[in-house]
Amino acid sequence: MPLTTIFQEIRTASRDLLLLAPEQINAVLLAVADAIEEHTDRLLLANRQDLARMDAANPKYDRLKLTAERLAGIASDMRNVAALPSPLGRVLREATLPNGLQLQRVAVPFGVIGVIYEARPNVSFDVFALCLKAGSACVLKGGSDAESSNRAIVALISEVLTRQGLNPRIATLLPSTREATTALLHARGWVDLIIPRGSSNLINFVRSEATIPVIETGAGVCHTYVDATAERDCAQRIVVNAKTRRVSVCNALDSLLIHRDRLTDLPHICAPMADHRVMIYADAPALEALSGSYPAELLQPLPEGACGTEYLDYKMSVLTVDSADEAIAHIARYGSGHSECIVSHDEASIRRFQSLVDAACVYVNAPTSFTDGAQFGLGAEIGISTQKLHARGPMALEEITTYKWLIRGEGQVRN
Amino acid sequence: MPLTTIFQEIRTASRDLLLLAPEQINAVLLAVADAIEEHTDRLLLANRQDLARMDAANPKYDRLKLTAERLAGIASDMRNVAALPSPLGRVLREATLPNGLQLQRVAVPFGVIGVIYEARPNVSFDVFALCLKAGSACVLKGGSDAESSNRAIVALISEVLTRQGLNPRIATLLPSTREATTALLHARGWVDLIIPRGSSNLINFVRSEATIPVIETGAGVCHTYVDATAERDCAQRIVVNAKTRRVSVCNALDSLLIHRDRLTDLPHICAPMADHRVMIYADAPALEALSGSYPAELLQPLPEGACGTEYLDYKMSVLTVDSADEAIAHIARYGSGHSECIVSHDEASIRRFQSLVDAACVYVNAPTSFTDGAQFGLGAEIGISTQKLHARGPMALEEITTYKWLIRGEGQVRN
Repeated sequence: MPLTTIFQEIRTASRDLLLLAPEQINAVLLAVADAIEEHTDRLLLANRQDLARMDAANPKYDRLKLTAERLAGIASDMRNVAALPSPLGRVLREATLPNGLQLQRVAVPFGVIGVIYEARPNVSFDVFALCLKAGSACVLKGGSDAESSNRAIVALISEVLTRQGLNPRIATLLPSTREATTALLHARGWVDLIIPRGSSNLINFVRSEATIPVIETGAGVCHTYVDATAERDCAQRIVVNAKTRRVSVCNALDSLLIHRDRLTDLPHICAPMADHRVMIYADAPALEALSGSYPAELLQPLPEGACGTEYLDYKMSVLTVDSADEAIAHIARYGSGHSECIVSHDEASIRRFQSLVDAACVYVNAPTSFTDGAQFGLGAEIGISTQKLHARGPMALEEITTYKWLIRGEGQVRN
Repeated sequence: MPLTTIFQEIRTASRDLLLLAPEQINAVLLAVADAIEEHTDRLLLANRQDLARMDAANPKYDRLKLTAERLAGIASDMRNVAALPSPLGRVLREATLPNGLQLQRVAVPFGVIGVIYEARPNVSFDVFALCLKAGSACVLKGGSDAESSNRAIVALISEVLTRQGLNPRIATLLPSTREATTALLHARGWVDLIIPRGSSNLINFVRSEATIPVIETGAGVCHTYVDATAERDCAQRIVVNAKTRRVSVCNALDSLLIHRDRLTDLPHICAPMADHRVMIYADAPALEALSGSYPAELLQPLPEGACGTEYLDYKMSVLTVDSADEAIAHIARYGSGHSECIVSHDEASIRRFQSLVDAACVYVNAPTSFTDGAQFGLGAEIGISTQKLHARGPMALEEITTYKWLIRGEGQVRN
C-alpha cells in the first residue's frame, strides 16, 4: 500500500478518537495491558528473532531485549497511564465577552503524532499508550534492529483495537526503511507532530529534513556550578549523584564548574567519584587541586574542545570560574538547554542563575538527575524537550495535547 | 558588520532583559510612545521616501502609508501594551515533591524572536512592543518597500533604549536583502523563534527554509455551515458579517456550506451580499436556489478547484451538503485550520462540529470575523497561528513566552 494512503487512513482513524470518552480510552489501555500478559510468549518469540540478528556484546542488545518481567512492567505502566487523569477537555481559559460571546480555550488532541526511535521495543508500547491517552493516533517508526518485536507489538495492539471496535490504524507501524522515514517527515496535512527519540545524529537529520513540526528531545550537556558559598557535603552529594546515578542518560552531569575559592574542597567533592572510576578532565587550577588526592590514572588535563561534550559515560570535565556570572556565561555558550544546577547559599547568585540560565530545568541545591517526568510527578514521559517551542523539559500527557478556541454566540456580529 | 556578529549581539542583549522588572519594561514602552508623538515629522518624512517609490494605485500603498493620526494610534496602542499585565513570572504549575524538592514551572521569555513581514511599517512598532513586553529581543525583517520607514522607526526605538540604559540591539532591523532572510532562517542558537507574517508564498518559503522553529500565521480558508436547524435571520447576520466586514483579512468567510433543506432560505441569507457586490460561485443546487433573486451578474457556477480558495475579496463559494457530517468532512479537506462556524440549534450537530472540526477557532452561532486577539480579550495580537504546536489562534503576550522548570532542594539526591 502506498504510504500516502496509509497516512490518509491514519488521519481518518484519528478523527474517531475525538468522539471517545476518557473511559473508553482507558478501557483500551487496560485491554492492551491484559493482552501483553496473555501473549507474553508471542512477544518474546518475536523479540528472540531480533536478538538472534544482533551480537550479544552490542551495547544495544540489552535495550532490545524483552523478558517476561519487562513485559509485566510494561503492562503495569500501561495500567498506570490508564489511571492518570485525562489531559483532554480541560478548560484552559474561559470568558464571557461584553457582547455575550462565550469563549473557551479547551485542551484537544493533536491528531496524529509520529515518533521516530531506535532499537527499544518498549518505546512502541509507551508511545502508543501516551498518544492514545492524549487522544491522538500514533505513527511508529522504530529501528530495523527491533523490527520483529515491533511488528508483534503493533499486531497485538491492533487486535485489541479491532476487538474494541476501533480502527487499528490509530497505532500504525511504518516499514523500517529510509523511504518511510522521509515520507513521514514530509507528511504535511496527515501528521501533526514528529518527536524524534535517539542519537543527536537522528535528531539533526529529522530537524533538517522535516517539513512538519518537530519537538526535539534528548541531548543534554549538563553543568553543575559549585558556588563560593556552597555547603561542601551538599555539593559532594549533588555532584556525585548527578554524575554517577546513571551515566547513559541525558540528565547526567558532564561538566563541573567550580568557584576558584572552593578549589580546596574539590578533592573532597570528587573523592567518591574514584570508586566509580570516573575519568576527570580538569583545567589547570582544578588539575593542580586534584593532583595527589584523585587517582592519577583517572585524571587528565582538559583537552581542547572538550567543553560542550555530552559524555554519556563515566567521564566529566572540571573547570574553574571566578564568579556565578562566569559560570552562567559558560553555560550559555556550551549548555544544550536541558538541565543546569547551582549549589549555593547566596540568594543573589541563586536568583541570577535562575533568571539568566536558559534551560528547561534549572536546579538549586539538587542534582540534575531529577529531570524526569515521573520524578516531576507528571505520571509519564514521552521525552525531554530541549527546545522552547510548545513544551520544555519532561513531556507528559498535557504536553502532547494542543488546544482550540470554542466560541458560542446567539447571532452577535462584529462592528 | 557580518550578520552572525549581529545575531550574537542580539542574543547577548536579550539576556539583559531577563533582569528587568515589568515596570522597567513598561517605562520603555511609554517612552517610545512619547517619542513617536514627539518625532512624528521625522517618521512621516521617512515614510514619504518609501511612498515616493510606490505607485499610489498599488493596493499596498495604503498599508505602507503613515499619517499623524496613524502614528498617534500606534503610540496609543503602545501605551495599551504597557498597561497590560506582564506575561512573565507566572507560576504555571507548582508542587512540593515527597522528597521535599520544590518545583515551579514559570513563564519566561523566549529570548530572541524574529518576525518577517511585508510593507506595513506599523508592524515594526507592534512587534517591538509585544516582544519587549514578553521579555524578548526582536529581529525585524521588513519588506524593502518600507525600508526608509522601518529604519526611522528602529532608529527612534534605539534612541529611547539607549537613553534608558538598555542595549539597542534588543530591537534590530535586518537589511531588507534575501541574504539577511536566509541568515535569519538559519540562525540556530541565536534566534529562538520565527514568525512569518504575510502572503502564503512567504510562509511556505519560511517553512521550507527555516532550521529554527517557526510559528505559521495567517492563511484562513474559512467556512460557515448553515445547518438544517439554523435560525434564518441569525444565519443571514452571521454570513453577511463574516463575508463583508473586511474582506482582506484572514478570518473572512470564503465558503458557505448550506444544508440541502435550507436551500429555500439561501436567497434570504445572501440578499444583503448584493449590496456589497459579492460575487457568488455556487454549486448546481445553490445556483438554482439563487437564480432569479441574486443579481445574475454576481452569480456564477462553482469553478473546478474553487474549494479551498482564500478569496481575500468580495467573493465566496456556496456549496450544498446533506448533513453536518458532510460539512465537517468538507472542512477537514479544504479548511486551513483557522476559523470555522456552524449556525445551528441542534445540540447534537453542534457538539459533533465542535469536537470534529480541527481548527484554531470553532464558532457556534457567531461569525468568524471575531477571530482577533483584541476581540478575544487578549489585549494585543502578534498574529493568528494556524498550526497546532505551541500556540493556536490569536497569539498575544502569553503565547510569545515559554517556560522553564525551577527546582529547589537542600541536597536531596535521586535513588
